[in-house]
Amino acid sequence: MKTSPKTLRVVQYGVGPIGLAAIRAVLARPDLELVGAIDIDPALQQRDVADLAGLRRPSGVRVSHRAQEILAVGQPDVVLHSTQSHLEDVLPQIKDCLEARANVVSTCEELVFPSVRQPRLTREIDALARSKGAVVLGTGVNPGFVMDTLALASTSPCQDVSSILVERVVDAALRRVTLLKKVGAGLTLAEFRAEVRNRRLGHVGLVESLYLVAAGIGWELGRVTEKLTPLIAKKSIRTPHLTVKARQVSGLHHVCRGFRGGKQALQLDLQIFVGAKNPYDRIVIRGKPPLDIRLEGGLAGDEATVGMLLTMARGIEGLKPGLRTMLDVTLPHFRSGK
Amino acid sequence: MKTSPKTLRVVQYGVGPIGLAAIRAVLARPDLELVGAIDIDPALQQRDVADLAGLRRPSGVRVSHRAQEILAVGQPDVVLHSTQSHLEDVLPQIKDCLEARANVVSTCEELVFPSVRQPRLTREIDALARSKGAVVLGTGVNPGFVMDTLALASTSPCQDVSSILVERVVDAALRRVTLLKKVGAGLTLAEFRAEVRNRRLGHVGLVESLYLVAAGIGWELGRVTEKLTPLIAKKSIRTPHLTVKARQVSGLHHVCRGFRGGKQALQLDLQIFVGAKNPYDRIVIRGKPPLDIRLEGGLAGDEATVGMLLTMARGIEGLKPGLRTMLDVTLPHFRSGK
Repeated sequence: MKTSPKTLRVVQYGVGPIGLAAIRAVLARPDLELVGAIDIDPALQQRDVADLAGLRRPSGVRVSHRAQEILAVGQPDVVLHSTQSHLEDVLPQIKDCLEARANVVSTCEELVFPSVRQPRLTREIDALARSKGAVVLGTGVNPGFVMDTLALASTSPCQDVSSILVERVVDAALRRVTLLKKVGAGLTLAEFRAEVRNRRLGHVGLVESLYLVAAGIGWELGRVTEKLTPLIAKKSIRTPHLTVKARQVSGLHHVCRGFRGGKQALQLDLQIFVGAKNPYDRIVIRGKPPLDIRLEGGLAGDEATVGMLLTMARGIEGLKPGLRTMLDVTLPHFRSGK
Repeated sequence: MKTSPKTLRVVQYGVGPIGLAAIRAVLARPDLELVGAIDIDPALQQRDVADLAGLRRPSGVRVSHRAQEILAVGQPDVVLHSTQSHLEDVLPQIKDCLEARANVVSTCEELVFPSVRQPRLTREIDALARSKGAVVLGTGVNPGFVMDTLALASTSPCQDVSSILVERVVDAALRRVTLLKKVGAGLTLAEFRAEVRNRRLGHVGLVESLYLVAAGIGWELGRVTEKLTPLIAKKSIRTPHLTVKARQVSGLHHVCRGFRGGKQALQLDLQIFVGAKNPYDRIVIRGKPPLDIRLEGGLAGDEATVGMLLTMARGIEGLKPGLRTMLDVTLPHFRSGK
């Protein structure tokens, strides 16, 4: 990829809640220059992103749906991409970025480790990225950090590892209304089941985290299971966005397991529900030595996702062109932009 | 450096407690082949390392003080080096390894980030390593992981970081007798102070961890302070190796602080003493988002040090020749050797 300029030219692709938070963060950093913003939402067209982000000073950057034009004019070093969860949906967007020879750091959940479930799209993106000399990386907080990258890094001092369990408990009441919908908060049990059948509910990326960890350690998994169950509110819970009544769904419990030789080697256990009293993340490594790591309060989802985007905007420097994963990056960490 | 062979040829340099534990770990792994063992201790000469390590089956590898000969005959891909803490002391040993064009992964504490306090030796080792096409890396659990590498990785999801505190509380009673001596357990207060003056007490590497974290984040530190205080036993404590009487020293409290613009940005706070009831490690990041990470029970020092050696024996693959630090390595993690 291109050698590192002192100031990175950045285009934000997707101006939803994450995109706006990323824009605020980029505008606050002297080492990043926002040179464009892309979104298809008609209501956002030609709006100054600073205005949308609640900032007083206009940025001069206006939202446009004309992706190719924005990329051609802006000539970004890196595109921060946060639109959708499924690789198939974002494929044309990523292709546009690559055609403009821009690197892409994306929160698309399936992009965190796509080779197992999307081998054809993976090869296609990888080949295009190589031919354009650009890097594509999927990242984020979950998937992308707490249940995979951090879990892997935590195994560094182990001479041996027999199994890894990662738990994440998120209080959905503190999160965006889109997340509340994704976890089914406020639905009846029947509605929840119908939504699961229609694949409109659930957390995308858990199985990608599982495959990322397995690939890092060098474990070939046999059986991989996924289980999605509703959590039911015992009493009525009021949130800023909606009220969940007693016996309605408060959220979901999503568990992904990976087995080796019939034995469970990996378990990623995610609960997102309204009213979680003590949210936390926990990484339990059975090994020599064992580790029991707890993130008190849990890692704040949206802020942390934007943090990962910014960290990896710099963190992809020096990587070989192609579709890369967090397994390929140099020790990731916050870098002061000053 | 050399491209990665399926099996790595390994020489163990230093056959003390860490070296022996590393030998046991190497012999247990199909992807690592022990091809030599170096130590100056007369009592160890020509002893089979398997015998020393308490293993039944002879390894055929005998300890020798003839470093150059062992390296020339063994032609190791990597030397696992664990002898002393100060760079000046280990310099000739590392030079011998480099002359044999072997990569070096070392637990020498000062080697974890030597450029600030040992700029001349750093340049010398770096130049020799480059000229021989080999990599030299300092690693370990502390310094090398829990107070620096893991702390840095934990900042990945942060958009901003204002300060980092790492605490580590170690129960010295669970550790080797050499460590008990290093922390002054069983000394009177007067003896402790004399030993500190003679620089025979204290933990080497805390300030190296501090500089490693600062360099990763891009913080230029102004003032850096170090404070070493004795911890006093309130009552008599018996350990497998010695008994600490009431009012004797039970261990030490070593605090290293780094300031930016007069404000404390980094604090590494280490307590190692006999009778620590709830050992733990804790990483507290003030930032957006904040993180509060706790390693319950603390990370077992010796086992984890050996784990880091093995992880980095593979983890240096692909690095440019020269003196490298944990800042340069690809996301470190355990790799199954099978």
